[in-house]
Amino acid sequence: MKKREIVTFLSDYGLEDEFVGVCHGVVLGIAPHLRIIDVNHNILRQDIRHGAIVLAQSIPFLPDSVHLAVVDPTVGSHRRAVAVETGWGETFVGPDNGLLIPAARATGGIKRVHEIVNEGFLLRPVSRTFHGRDVFAPATAHIANGVDPAELGPPIAEDDLEQLEIPKAWAHDDHLHAEVLQVDRFGNLQLNLFRPQLVEIGMDGGMRIEVRLEGHRLAVEFGSAFADVKAGDFVLVEDSYRYVSLAVNKGDARARLRAHAGSTVIVGPAVAE
Amino acid sequence: MKKREIVTFLSDYGLEDEFVGVCHGVVLGIAPHLRIIDVNHNILRQDIRHGAIVLAQSIPFLPDSVHLAVVDPTVGSHRRAVAVETGWGETFVGPDNGLLIPAARATGGIKRVHEIVNEGFLLRPVSRTFHGRDVFAPATAHIANGVDPAELGPPIAEDDLEQLEIPKAWAHDDHLHAEVLQVDRFGNLQLNLFRPQLVEIGMDGGMRIEVRLEGHRLAVEFGSAFADVKAGDFVLVEDSYRYVSLAVNKGDARARLRAHAGSTVIVGPAVAE
Amino acid sequence: MKKREIVTFLSDYGLEDEFVGVCHGVVLGIAPHLRIIDVNHNILRQDIRHGAIVLAQSIPFLPDSVHLAVVDPTVGSHRRAVAVETGWGETFVGPDNGLLIPAARATGGIKRVHEIVNEGFLLRPVSRTFHGRDVFAPATAHIANGVDPAELGPPIAEDDLEQLEIPKAWAHDDHLHAEVLQVDRFGNLQLNLFRPQLVEIGMDGGMRIEVRLEGHRLAVEFGSAFADVKAGDFVLVEDSYRYVSLAVNKGDARARLRAHAGSTVIVGPAVAE
Repeated sequence: MKKREIVTFLSDYGLEDEFVGVCHGVVLGIAPHLRIIDVNHNILRQDIRHGAIVLAQSIPFLPDSVHLAVVDPTVGSHRRAVAVETGWGETFVGPDNGLLIPAARATGGIKRVHEIVNEGFLLRPVSRTFHGRDVFAPATAHIANGVDPAELGPPIAEDDLEQLEIPKAWAHDDHLHAEVLQVDRFGNLQLNLFRPQLVEIGMDGGMRIEVRLEGHRLAVEFGSAFADVKAGDFVLVEDSYRYVSLAVNKGDARARLRAHAGSTVIVGPAVAE
Repeated sequence: MKKREIVTFLSDYGLEDEFVGVCHGVVLGIAPHLRIIDVNHNILRQDIRHGAIVLAQSIPFLPDSVHLAVVDPTVGSHRRAVAVETGWGETFVGPDNGLLIPAARATGGIKRVHEIVNEGFLLRPVSRTFHGRDVFAPATAHIANGVDPAELGPPIAEDDLEQLEIPKAWAHDDHLHAEVLQVDRFGNLQLNLFRPQLVEIGMDGGMRIEVRLEGHRLAVEFGSAFADVKAGDFVLVEDSYRYVSLAVNKGDARARLRAHAGSTVIVGPAVAE
Repeated sequence: MKKREIVTFLSDYGLEDEFVGVCHGVVLGIAPHLRIIDVNHNILRQDIRHGAIVLAQSIPFLPDSVHLAVVDPTVGSHRRAVAVETGWGETFVGPDNGLLIPAARATGGIKRVHEIVNEGFLLRPVSRTFHGRDVFAPATAHIANGVDPAELGPPIAEDDLEQLEIPKAWAHDDHLHAEVLQVDRFGNLQLNLFRPQLVEIGMDGGMRIEVRLEGHRLAVEFGSAFADVKAGDFVLVEDSYRYVSLAVNKGDARARLRAHAGSTVIVGPAVAE
């Protein structure tokens, strides 16, 4: 296998504790030449779906690499540890709980999967509660050193992996039923909705669109940048990952609407009052 | 241009999201040899002044480098992206909104400015909402690879840049009118005030000084370290950036006074009761 | 001395400010070849004991290295700056306030200590409030460059160092008096208690154990993984550092019990009702 110079790391470990730091320590203890990109360690606690969404949308901007990802609410149970290789040459290392699936599908599809069980490549004894440190970090470092994932354990059929789908907005008459995928630091609400879906129900840039969520009913311009509306006004934009987002120019849509990941959103034509 | 080994990165992106991580990914995708110093990503949201203050006071402690800085409330509007070279050989990359100005003035002054518009050095298509990833990160990486900023776009006259001044305390009779520049994790209040300004109105180390802010009226010793006063007592010190700061030894001045960046502070001689 | 490729860094500086970033800048300004592992910067503010606990339990997973650690409530007083070498070849750099002691004892014991006073290896002038930047970071970088700590200042006898002990649980009849050492992001409560201590009073894996803390009285299974109990149930497990921890499977024990570092915990046999 190709030796790597860079690996990436995403988790729900947060930065309050030393979890991320000791995983870095383990990786660099095995592969001292590596640099590690910390993609995000503030995935919502034990929220596999959130981790999968962030990993999948980050991956186009990360170098071809070994990608370590850990959101692992069932650590210590029988869930498997896996290394997933994709058609475009990326390798994802993490728990078999769906976390890696959308990112793998977005990078050429799953080509080869191996379970990670060979203790020669793990920290021993493997704890029952911190596989990031004892299983996934060392496996990542060895693969980055050029070890073939086949040495880590037996192959697994793609169909045997836990699956996870990121929900997609769906149309009903002239409306779309969407939801909030995630909320960022600026309070922007990313919806599971793409511009072509809006176009299909007859709406597009420059139009006013009705958005209903969390008891609010808004008529919002579909702009091309936050600055297309006045400071403090709501705006729909195609965000930098090409999802449609609901934002407030120079403001915070989450705070204004008390919305959160999973909030139901109904989008349709604005009716003149 | 000189090829760099290290670049620095400051932003208001926070660490809750993957914004910082994907910018790292873009930089290392273009210049895989680089190491990136994360100066601070918790600049107050969209607060250009706060970003400018932190960048300017950090820069003496950072290696000669390309400095990526993004606090960008008007992203997607007509504000320009710029690369600013200074007299001492530093290069600053970021939005033309004043953010880079105090740091550039503190490192030999502005020598040369180029707009960043050449799409050959950007991610395409450039999104309207995330220029950190699509414009500033790739430009930084290319400059660190040795690309001359002149290749990124046309020159801009220094006078054409958006300006930003960090406010300075001013004297009125025997008082100084200051403000809180920023508050750190420990609750220390950094004032826009230098010791020589205190000396000019007849006050110096060891004296008790009256400080009025947020409805409080304190008589505070001007010490040389927090530990010069008892635990729990207020103290004025020259902080490590040579600003005068109001602190509580082993305590939290922000919490005690409910002060914040921008709070007005009046400093003068303490009157015996 | 051996030149190092990697150093580690732990502090209570947090990530809200630029403190960590400028320390990175100082280190890489002196030793541009280094990579820095950020072990944890969210040690509770000025809590030396918390820093000592986290450093000591992280160290087995970090590369043989120079370890920079700063929790420094008496900065600017007469407390000394020290470089501590241990029997296994690690070097710890930080304040002489006990912070480094448990980690040094856990890595072969203290072999040699030098005070850090030689201004030729420090930033000048040394501020009275930010020795992380002005003293500890440059000393760390110079040692990583191969400078012998003896060049930084005079030797100090081990007995002259400030001591710090991490408290240990103690038995009284059939009960153990323990305390919460720390609480992690997931709300798991790490106790100062090891499994052999439980075995000594006749309890072990699979048994139900009575745990009293903060006014609560729980009968908890001593499992081998969180998933050994139903979601929402309390469980005692040997955590990944071999401490006994009180957790809630897929839940948050801190929130349920309102416990915190230092909470008293009494552990003993569960009485059938």
